[in-house]
Amino acid sequence: MDPAIKKKALRMITYGLFVATAQDDSGPAAGAINWISQNSFTPPLIMVAFKADSALHRAVTASRKFIVHVVGKDQKDLASAFFRGAELSGDKLNGYRIEKSQDGIPLLVDPPAWFECRVTNEVRGGDHTVFVAEVVEAGVRSDAEPLTLRDTGFFYGG
Amino acid sequence: MDPAIKKKALRMITYGLFVATAQDDSGPAAGAINWISQNSFTPPLIMVAFKADSALHRAVTASRKFIVHVVGKDQKDLASAFFRGAELSGDKLNGYRIEKSQDGIPLLVDPPAWFECRVTNEVRGGDHTVFVAEVVEAGVRSDAEPLTLRDTGFFYGG
Repeated sequence: MDPAIKKKALRMITYGLFVATAQDDSGPAAGAINWISQNSFTPPLIMVAFKADSALHRAVTASRKFIVHVVGKDQKDLASAFFRGAELSGDKLNGYRIEKSQDGIPLLVDPPAWFECRVTNEVRGGDHTVFVAEVVEAGVRSDAEPLTLRDTGFFYGG
Repeated sequence: MDPAIKKKALRMITYGLFVATAQDDSGPAAGAINWISQNSFTPPLIMVAFKADSALHRAVTASRKFIVHVVGKDQKDLASAFFRGAELSGDKLNGYRIEKSQDGIPLLVDPPAWFECRVTNEVRGGDHTVFVAEVVEAGVRSDAEPLTLRDTGFFYGG
């Protein structure tokens, strides 16, 4: 297999852009992610890949739960703010206002939609771990169109 | 959790549209899919959810391999042709010309890109099964922009 061709083909998978948050004993963890998809209607399950050596991975492994926020078309700045580690300052995470979910996970108030997930299975083996998780709570704050990875000019895949 | 809110939030996940093919002793299997994402760079892994009661699921479970074709922006008709079961007629599958991959899997010649995958893990439990699979071969035939699920006006999720 030609690695350049493999890279080009895999970069033709369409993605949205999301911010995931979690919380463990050491505090909040967060990150911008795009490797996510639903994988069942009943029960409602999603599959998501978190980087194995990340704080987000550590917090999700410990707490078994996380929130995924859908980033809106005009919120590229918000997504970009989560390319680095989580930094809490007052009621703001990486500069963006949060509430606490019922489960104590940081919940960003600006994104148009979010869903909270409980891990049911995981698959290790690559540089990211696949978490399969049940959607247990969800919210929609606006009808904003979602931001796609293609919109941003960034790539994460290949 | 309000099911209508959950549905609306999950439908804000951005997807592409793809055609997956597989082959087992009973013949070819195929289907249009959108629940797929990469989940590792090294090794190159993808995660995909196939409907548990489908012929595609049966063929992938038996053969442990499949091909995913990226559908181009102007190929909504091709994707739509794979909303039904696989029907082979001469060198055409559901009306679209195929070759055989080195592994004997139907390979559509019209899509702009494809990748062949070998299953490494699976997670059952929902109405679809998650297959984690290593990308072992890939091809790019054109620079066409990928079709997104949003482009089609279809939904599969929620």
